[in-house]
Amino acid sequence: MALHNGGERMSYTGSARAHTNIALIKYWGKRDKELFLPMNSSLSLTLDAFYTDTTIEFSETNENDIFYLNTIRQSKPETEKLSCFLNLFRSNFDIDLKATIKSINHVPTGAGLASSASAFAALAAATRDAFNLDIDDQTLSTYARRGSGSATRSIYGGFVEWQKGTSSETSCAIPIDNAEWDIGMVIVVVNSSHKKISSRVGMERTVQTSPFYPAWLETAAADLENIKEAIYRKDFVRLGEITESNAMKMHATTLGSLPPFTYWEEGTMTAMNCVYKLREAGIPCYFTIDAGPNVKILCRKSDISTICSQLSGTFDDNQLVVSSVGDGVKHLTIT
Amino acid sequence: MALHNGGERMSYTGSARAHTNIALIKYWGKRDKELFLPMNSSLSLTLDAFYTDTTIEFSETNENDIFYLNTIRQSKPETEKLSCFLNLFRSNFDIDLKATIKSINHVPTGAGLASSASAFAALAAATRDAFNLDIDDQTLSTYARRGSGSATRSIYGGFVEWQKGTSSETSCAIPIDNAEWDIGMVIVVVNSSHKKISSRVGMERTVQTSPFYPAWLETAAADLENIKEAIYRKDFVRLGEITESNAMKMHATTLGSLPPFTYWEEGTMTAMNCVYKLREAGIPCYFTIDAGPNVKILCRKSDISTICSQLSGTFDDNQLVVSSVGDGVKHLTIT
Repeated sequence: MALHNGGERMSYTGSARAHTNIALIKYWGKRDKELFLPMNSSLSLTLDAFYTDTTIEFSETNENDIFYLNTIRQSKPETEKLSCFLNLFRSNFDIDLKATIKSINHVPTGAGLASSASAFAALAAATRDAFNLDIDDQTLSTYARRGSGSATRSIYGGFVEWQKGTSSETSCAIPIDNAEWDIGMVIVVVNSSHKKISSRVGMERTVQTSPFYPAWLETAAADLENIKEAIYRKDFVRLGEITESNAMKMHATTLGSLPPFTYWEEGTMTAMNCVYKLREAGIPCYFTIDAGPNVKILCRKSDISTICSQLSGTFDDNQLVVSSVGDGVKHLTIT
Repeated sequence: MALHNGGERMSYTGSARAHTNIALIKYWGKRDKELFLPMNSSLSLTLDAFYTDTTIEFSETNENDIFYLNTIRQSKPETEKLSCFLNLFRSNFDIDLKATIKSINHVPTGAGLASSASAFAALAAATRDAFNLDIDDQTLSTYARRGSGSATRSIYGGFVEWQKGTSSETSCAIPIDNAEWDIGMVIVVVNSSHKKISSRVGMERTVQTSPFYPAWLETAAADLENIKEAIYRKDFVRLGEITESNAMKMHATTLGSLPPFTYWEEGTMTAMNCVYKLREAGIPCYFTIDAGPNVKILCRKSDISTICSQLSGTFDDNQLVVSSVGDGVKHLTIT
């Protein structure tokens, strides 16, 4: 949406909402740190409860990029990250304007939900919107990827594959299924404090030192094919089994690293045991765990309240966060 | 020690004590279930605090083998296991007498300490003693192996290697070092109840289904060479680092199994974190974990009291069991 301020000062404004996502087949390891090219293809579920709303205004009046997150002006280093990201658009589309970015994150902090995924997807979509750029969603996902790997998948809703591709242009997201078949998620926040080993550092150490990494890559590729087949057949149990197994394997790779490490904590084990007990009680649900201690439970949307009431015997209500399936990026009407 | 009862009834009595051991390079996977031939060579520390005392009397008066454990007559299936074991000696040495076996286990139950290791090592040694059989300790370890894999290593004291060998005759223990250089162990009993997945079942599932198993085998072989080098140099830190890394890798293999599983529990993570904190506080100590939730801390014997006082803030005193280094099998004088 390009705006022209009375012919005096040129400005272009765009806005977008993007949701975060949870990987069911994990992205674990980069083959190119600059371009955020992953070692393996991954697959995620977009979540509607957690999103970032971003408006961006490119204007001749800006001497520098300015970034407000949750209405607070951000530091130079934080702003610099977004400037680098916007430079990709500026260089490809001959834009020489600086921007004011205003983002509101509707992602609970410390829940192990990657707000960087929704943030960079929203920023990419808002920028496309500002100049009405002629790029399709798939190409947009390659831009989002340059901000944060998992942002690639947040361009689309439902189940989304991030194909590792063979180049920056082909490492993109594709929508697999809208996931509108009674799918939901319960997130158990077992520890909301900052994790000791970032996913960037964890990935790097694993790729470089874990003897299990080659087997991870091989089996993640097989898991991806199998989970797409399960999604195609709407086979929830198979979907869940592959999800849980894939997460376990990702975490196995960290135990083989030198020095070994784990993202698990006491509460991680507690939540895993809750999932086993729920399954024994006949409720189909499966956990996945990212590079942190929190546990995400893939379940039937219709089972969410049952699952939460079971978990509330073990966890506080404020440790439980629920979501149904989210959409892809969309334009926000600025009011 | 052969006894002759006044020329009327022939009887042969022997006795022995054997200590249990903790693997620092884990035995994880069998290549021959009948013969207890392992997939990889392993290395252990024999512990003096936990042992089995066994007396055996082979006598013409026995119509069947009789087995008392901790003074309680054992069931037919339990006795049958020992009969099968004794048959190895009976067939190799032309013995046609049945036996009465009396064992006292000084191994705390449920602490994740393999009493089968000390039990079969003691039984093998007592049998050798009864007939004064001409078999050396190394050969004796191949007999012990047939009762329980880890019993192989309990024939010797200190650091002991179990070489996987190429046959039943060559899959034997060899002593590496007496470990008399300020070595001790603290065992944290986080759960003393029966584990859900036995080590036999866990090994089997891992060997058959875990994509990480080949890398386990490769790196366990390298770990063994490196830990022997560390022992040779009396490099405690290196010894501990290899121990901890090897245990982490063994447990990683279970996460890759189908279905995935773990022996860890909440308390396992708690104890692991205690070890990290002890190291941060400058106390060199390293954990290892067997096919169960309990955590064994390899440490300086001179640090045991400091470590226990630190742990007692988190665990009850009855959850902490300590040991120094144990000897190999020895004859017990029957009084």
